[in-house]
Amino acid sequence: MTNASSQNAVRVGIAGLGTVGSALARLLLTRSDALTAEGTPALQLTAVSARDASRDRGVDLSAQTFHGDPVALATDESVDVVVELIGGEEGPAKDLVEAALSAGKPVVTANKALLAAHGLALAELAERQGASLLYEAAVAGGIPAIRALRDAVPGQTVSRVSGILNGTCNYILTRMEREGAAFDDVLADAQALGYAEADPTFDVDGFDTAHKLAILTSLAFGTEVEAQDMYIEGIRAITPEDMQAAKELGFRIKLLGVAQATETGIEQRVHPTMLPASSLLAQVNGVLNAVAVDTDLLGEIVLSGPGAGGDATAASVLADLQDVARGAAPKPLRLPRDTLRRYQRARMRTHEGGYYIRLSVVDQPGAFAAIAQQMAKQGISLQSIVQRRQAADDGPVTHQPVIIITHETLEQSVRDAMDAIVADGFVNAAPQIIRIER
Amino acid sequence: MTNASSQNAVRVGIAGLGTVGSALARLLLTRSDALTAEGTPALQLTAVSARDASRDRGVDLSAQTFHGDPVALATDESVDVVVELIGGEEGPAKDLVEAALSAGKPVVTANKALLAAHGLALAELAERQGASLLYEAAVAGGIPAIRALRDAVPGQTVSRVSGILNGTCNYILTRMEREGAAFDDVLADAQALGYAEADPTFDVDGFDTAHKLAILTSLAFGTEVEAQDMYIEGIRAITPEDMQAAKELGFRIKLLGVAQATETGIEQRVHPTMLPASSLLAQVNGVLNAVAVDTDLLGEIVLSGPGAGGDATAASVLADLQDVARGAAPKPLRLPRDTLRRYQRARMRTHEGGYYIRLSVVDQPGAFAAIAQQMAKQGISLQSIVQRRQAADDGPVTHQPVIIITHETLEQSVRDAMDAIVADGFVNAAPQIIRIER
Repeated sequence: MTNASSQNAVRVGIAGLGTVGSALARLLLTRSDALTAEGTPALQLTAVSARDASRDRGVDLSAQTFHGDPVALATDESVDVVVELIGGEEGPAKDLVEAALSAGKPVVTANKALLAAHGLALAELAERQGASLLYEAAVAGGIPAIRALRDAVPGQTVSRVSGILNGTCNYILTRMEREGAAFDDVLADAQALGYAEADPTFDVDGFDTAHKLAILTSLAFGTEVEAQDMYIEGIRAITPEDMQAAKELGFRIKLLGVAQATETGIEQRVHPTMLPASSLLAQVNGVLNAVAVDTDLLGEIVLSGPGAGGDATAASVLADLQDVARGAAPKPLRLPRDTLRRYQRARMRTHEGGYYIRLSVVDQPGAFAAIAQQMAKQGISLQSIVQRRQAADDGPVTHQPVIIITHETLEQSVRDAMDAIVADGFVNAAPQIIRIER
Repeated sequence: MTNASSQNAVRVGIAGLGTVGSALARLLLTRSDALTAEGTPALQLTAVSARDASRDRGVDLSAQTFHGDPVALATDESVDVVVELIGGEEGPAKDLVEAALSAGKPVVTANKALLAAHGLALAELAERQGASLLYEAAVAGGIPAIRALRDAVPGQTVSRVSGILNGTCNYILTRMEREGAAFDDVLADAQALGYAEADPTFDVDGFDTAHKLAILTSLAFGTEVEAQDMYIEGIRAITPEDMQAAKELGFRIKLLGVAQATETGIEQRVHPTMLPASSLLAQVNGVLNAVAVDTDLLGEIVLSGPGAGGDATAASVLADLQDVARGAAPKPLRLPRDTLRRYQRARMRTHEGGYYIRLSVVDQPGAFAAIAQQMAKQGISLQSIVQRRQAADDGPVTHQPVIIITHETLEQSVRDAMDAIVADGFVNAAPQIIRIER
């Protein structure tokens, strides 16, 4: 049953009543006074959709229309604006968003996978129908990063947008650093605590970060949304040895998503990075996220805060809903769809930067010299090369870790040097390579 | 002479052609393509006002109407929106803003002194006239802090807003820390470099921070703007000894503005603070600023970036102008004027927190014990009390520095204990007290 609607109220339908959806429903039902105090029309929750009507979600939804089929929310006449919190890049989430926009209804979503895959088509549909498509909650949870890029840097040239965009990865890396623990052990614990999914691939292998980066890139550079063929490397390969070396060298290891303008196009990459321990992003620990934007007028601005969590994510959805109630109608991707540029992506092998390289080197004369020589042959300038004595507790030492820090160099040169070093037979494991960011 | 206006263009008048005004004029004249690409009406600079028409500002303003009297901008029929960059809380700036709002024209300003003193009356006037009053550039330069508080936390309860709000102070403190230099020496150098004014009072004594804090407080807590009788302490008294002690104790010293909800009202205070060296705000160095907002749904979000500079400040003005072009019309103080609450300010002596106390103690038996006893008498729980041996290079040692770190305690207790210690005659200088923030 639906409440009689308040005069002029904006009537909200929520599809998906998981952690975020339930939190949002509770906020809409309990905070209407605070929201209408801002002088905007009331937000009134009139309809919901979920797979299971009867599940206890800690909030009384008996006064709302329940739809078993989310797409029915789009055509429900008691719904003015649709909130999509189902998730997934295809299926009911996509069907619902398309149906709502087609009906001319504004959509608020937290679905980064959907936007990364279909953001451009959905933006086009939204523009054509004159309906808003808002998604603050899709990137960096409670941090107002989308609106910062959308509203706060008009007329500026963005040279770089980067961020710690996945709370699960940041939580795991933070604990590995603090406890000296191995990835697998911390992951298992994170799963037990509910900070990581049973199948953690999406998070720890970098795909979630890539989806968010695809959205940020479009907003920052005025390009089409393009998540395909991005360079993506997750955090599974990070070891306690890398954490220890990072600490000694004055770095912290963070999984970053980075989009950066270069001479050959936009670099777009997700990988673990060594960040100076004194940098702002290096202090963003645990499940926190951060987004950094570099522009020609501002230099760098950094926004940090909660990257996930029911309340924080629902809070961002609420801010978007308040924008709808206010009548704000920004273009979905900041610029009109037909002015978004096609994507010119720089190839990863043309990336230039510093590199941390950890090698497991055969303990025999000449190995160290041969390695240094291969680096020199590729024109790689070394900042330091340190052979770390390994304790001989567990039997005879046959290999020694060697840590190399390079000055700024070309990724292709590093790859070629590593291929040659491996071919020389002086290492007994694949080189560990972590890019250094400022 | 005025250009023929583009169709539908929003015509901008700038009053005040200092660093920010000149930068803004240049941006408006050179970036119109990037701005109109966003699908909003063009921003067209039609008129300017300054004291001296002939001064070279590195930008050709011969096509713009020049007004010797800034108030004339308000009634210039070729001006749709007025940018006030004159500064000062009374006089021409105030006259111009009042005249423009009275004429129903939107105003964009970077003038924190004006807003701190007259923000409430101006907001009332703006609302009555249906004209926007926007001021992103007035607080924390290029950081989108005002719009974050205004747009991104609807329906939330803010418990605390704080920030590093003055670039001059942060620059001086950063250099004192890095160089071990004295305040006066760094100030003189900052003046020579143009980072500090010839009369630095406004910055280094905390008044500028207080003005900005007054604005943030109103937005965060839904209260009237009130800058009178705030607790304000500047950075002149910070010594190299404090910097050294901070470093050893794992702190950094920053001038913070803090507004915080307490049981007895809103604490509103500007003073040097000891911040944990690992905190985000502690990494905000040099002329950078930062704003931190704590809410019930988000926990803490932090925004950092450039606090001043012509381009960065002009960029924030430009974002506000783009909002005007888009037709955005937020309430000046987020909530409607008539719903803003009167100010219930907590008294500083009821502040609770940790304290760093540095005493210059007479080198005689019993002094140390007497001090500890006075602290105990006030119920102050000590985290540490360390007598630092002073080098005897400069003759006989008659006094020794003692550094005390307290657990959370009441400000009044600290004051009473200090009074008693001074009365006991065991110290030869006023105690140095620096509050510890998390």
